[in-house]
Amino acid sequence: MSAPLRVTVWNEYRHELKASHPASTIYPEGMHSAIAQGLREAGYEVRTATLDQPEHGLTDEVLANTDVLTWWGHMAHGEVRDEIVEKVHARVLEGMGLIVLHSAHYSKIFRKLMGTSCSLRWREADERERIWVLEPGHPITNGLEPYFEIPQEEMYGEQFDIPAPDELVFISSFAGGEVFRGGCSFFRGAGRIFYFSPGDQEYPVYFHPDVRRVLANAALWASPVAPERGAALASE
Amino acid sequence: MSAPLRVTVWNEYRHELKASHPASTIYPEGMHSAIAQGLREAGYEVRTATLDQPEHGLTDEVLANTDVLTWWGHMAHGEVRDEIVEKVHARVLEGMGLIVLHSAHYSKIFRKLMGTSCSLRWREADERERIWVLEPGHPITNGLEPYFEIPQEEMYGEQFDIPAPDELVFISSFAGGEVFRGGCSFFRGAGRIFYFSPGDQEYPVYFHPDVRRVLANAALWASPVAPERGAALASE
Amino acid sequence: MSAPLRVTVWNEYRHELKASHPASTIYPEGMHSAIAQGLREAGYEVRTATLDQPEHGLTDEVLANTDVLTWWGHMAHGEVRDEIVEKVHARVLEGMGLIVLHSAHYSKIFRKLMGTSCSLRWREADERERIWVLEPGHPITNGLEPYFEIPQEEMYGEQFDIPAPDELVFISSFAGGEVFRGGCSFFRGAGRIFYFSPGDQEYPVYFHPDVRRVLANAALWASPVAPERGAALASE
Amino acid sequence: MSAPLRVTVWNEYRHELKASHPASTIYPEGMHSAIAQGLREAGYEVRTATLDQPEHGLTDEVLANTDVLTWWGHMAHGEVRDEIVEKVHARVLEGMGLIVLHSAHYSKIFRKLMGTSCSLRWREADERERIWVLEPGHPITNGLEPYFEIPQEEMYGEQFDIPAPDELVFISSFAGGEVFRGGCSFFRGAGRIFYFSPGDQEYPVYFHPDVRRVLANAALWASPVAPERGAALASE
Repeated sequence: MSAPLRVTVWNEYRHELKASHPASTIYPEGMHSAIAQGLREAGYEVRTATLDQPEHGLTDEVLANTDVLTWWGHMAHGEVRDEIVEKVHARVLEGMGLIVLHSAHYSKIFRKLMGTSCSLRWREADERERIWVLEPGHPITNGLEPYFEIPQEEMYGEQFDIPAPDELVFISSFAGGEVFRGGCSFFRGAGRIFYFSPGDQEYPVYFHPDVRRVLANAALWASPVAPERGAALASE
Repeated sequence: MSAPLRVTVWNEYRHELKASHPASTIYPEGMHSAIAQGLREAGYEVRTATLDQPEHGLTDEVLANTDVLTWWGHMAHGEVRDEIVEKVHARVLEGMGLIVLHSAHYSKIFRKLMGTSCSLRWREADERERIWVLEPGHPITNGLEPYFEIPQEEMYGEQFDIPAPDELVFISSFAGGEVFRGGCSFFRGAGRIFYFSPGDQEYPVYFHPDVRRVLANAALWASPVAPERGAALASE
Repeated sequence: MSAPLRVTVWNEYRHELKASHPASTIYPEGMHSAIAQGLREAGYEVRTATLDQPEHGLTDEVLANTDVLTWWGHMAHGEVRDEIVEKVHARVLEGMGLIVLHSAHYSKIFRKLMGTSCSLRWREADERERIWVLEPGHPITNGLEPYFEIPQEEMYGEQFDIPAPDELVFISSFAGGEVFRGGCSFFRGAGRIFYFSPGDQEYPVYFHPDVRRVLANAALWASPVAPERGAALASE
Repeated sequence: MSAPLRVTVWNEYRHELKASHPASTIYPEGMHSAIAQGLREAGYEVRTATLDQPEHGLTDEVLANTDVLTWWGHMAHGEVRDEIVEKVHARVLEGMGLIVLHSAHYSKIFRKLMGTSCSLRWREADERERIWVLEPGHPITNGLEPYFEIPQEEMYGEQFDIPAPDELVFISSFAGGEVFRGGCSFFRGAGRIFYFSPGDQEYPVYFHPDVRRVLANAALWASPVAPERGAALASE
């Protein structure tokens, strides 16, 4: 039997602290708490870390003991210290999985890993996002129907300035007619990266059962294949 | 100066011959005539070929003198003779370009080249298709705006059972909420293949200026790089 | 806890039956027995099937109960019946894994899945093949050093007429100076395919510990992600 | 008729200025002069720029009038100013082609575009490099035989820590048994990037006719498809 997957959920945690912001009501304990709850239900060992903690909560000890890191940020990308970004980058190339969420398409770590601007089309909307499965045999789509819907979301659309993904797993459509490569995997060094677009701070997206399923699947998929884990899998 | 690009436009040419079918009004001289007209305006040397001609119009001599072949078929895929499919397949691997149009996703030649079922989701619709550019620097999207629209089209949607394209150039959205990888390139042997989804027989899609631009761009992109052509390009 | 992986090892089984052929000495019980032995040591549930059995040993019942199929063939590709190839093809698109070995690059099933000629450069040699790991984080390379060597092998070299692999995992070099994409993965439908080049019938390649490790890793990687399996993995 | 392709050849230009270094004899006017000479013979409009010029020779005016930039650097990557790297990066995403040569795998611009460490295995050697064509239909391999050789080169080998290339064009083998993805293309933003490994400062590689052919082909391939150029090509 293998050891449980160790996930660290990182969150900027600023919107939720403003009493006037919808996020403070939707996520009174922070988006990271909701994300972590979903991953714990999948059986993983989960801790959280936030921007305003010392070293953004990402000490060497935390990073060394993280199999998969999830990252949510939006208004404070610039406050993330470059030396922490360098450490996360090095850990990804070493094999740590990274799940990049929603507006973290513009985070320093994602842009550094991609090498492109990571810009996209967006529109403040309040509309239906439909997320289509392109790869029905992919571990990240395990258990999903051909599509699922999020009733209200911000619009993210093409052209999304990223390298062609190593695997294109989901495409979203919006009621306004836009499309978006909302689920993309990238292999960099020994690490696996998954970008997943749903998750605007104004909607309760991280309580959505299919979003939780995707995150649980993605964490498992992104976990490093250490010799012990491989052996465990082979003989389980 | 290089010789003009030699394009052969192949068409099943059955719908248009039924007086009761809308295609007979929209394309009184056949869809191939409209497609060929657009490509001639781009400066190419264009001939046409149809299913009911001897050898489907694709004699050894025609194939040997074709740089790029476009293919439209729908109701009579099964009538295309296997030995002609073999010849087209061999020419593609040798370097002839191939542009596969709309319902030809189910043609023998495309399925043989892809190795998958090439099935897709579809719905008889009469609705707006919006086609988004994913690769603004790609030769096939040269001269296009970020998206263009076809006012009325049949719906083709995901999951489209193809190998991951070598380049994903366009994604379509439909008014009903579906998405589709409607512009995909594939490299096979020395040949380049482009699948382009617009073109239902019930709508005048092949008169649309942006569709014509895509086809002209795609033919140029798919043309083989023969030694003479390369030299001509280098010294033009 | 999940059920063990069910692997079917298919072998043409002709060379080994000729008393004068080296394979009859190296693999007195057939190459399939050696391959199966290695996979059993990895903890999988393994059965074998050969060309001269009824339905080539691949009945509907066998295929329905196979998670991953390995395929070795060389001199009798043409004797494999087309309807069996169709069934294997359908099962791969449904999600069964397929591991294609050595000269099976020219098998009907691999050519059908690839859509290209699958031709390659070859030379009867008796020389060192060195196999380099390109993706150190890939599950298939788990536990390997940066390269491993096979002391004596036939030479397979580029240009290998395949679609660009979805993942290029290994490249081989030969003492004579050739190179070969000897470990390639392809995603087709819901299935995962791995081509692995070592395995000439004249050398005891399937007893080599690193070859066995690759095959064990590849079988695990190619296994379908059925809902039960995914659930099991997530909660193990 | 279209305007000639405008190429800027950038060189660190340090080794060649040391009287004791072999490069001072092989390239008395600098490696950039030899590279530029080859590209001029292909009919392009070529200028050069070097590290020790003001702004490294890459003023806004030069960059704005460059279709394709070639980059050679080795001992002074760290002296390239970050703001110049930012400008080159922005121009690549806008559509300027970039050809990255030999030890420039470690240049700031290439590492920034790739997002990985770009480390590789190397060995001071003096041995035969054989470069194999993987994509015989690719514009960059136009006019080449199945392989060509460089009699003496330094060894560069796998594992090369880059994202999977969008197109793998060449693989090299070395007399010592190593392999290397020595010709790789990447699409980033609207720009095309080609990494080509031959070109150690101690050997006259940039006089080699096949190396010159590759560079001429690659420059043409990497050139941006501006509306005017596309139109010109379509009607030439």
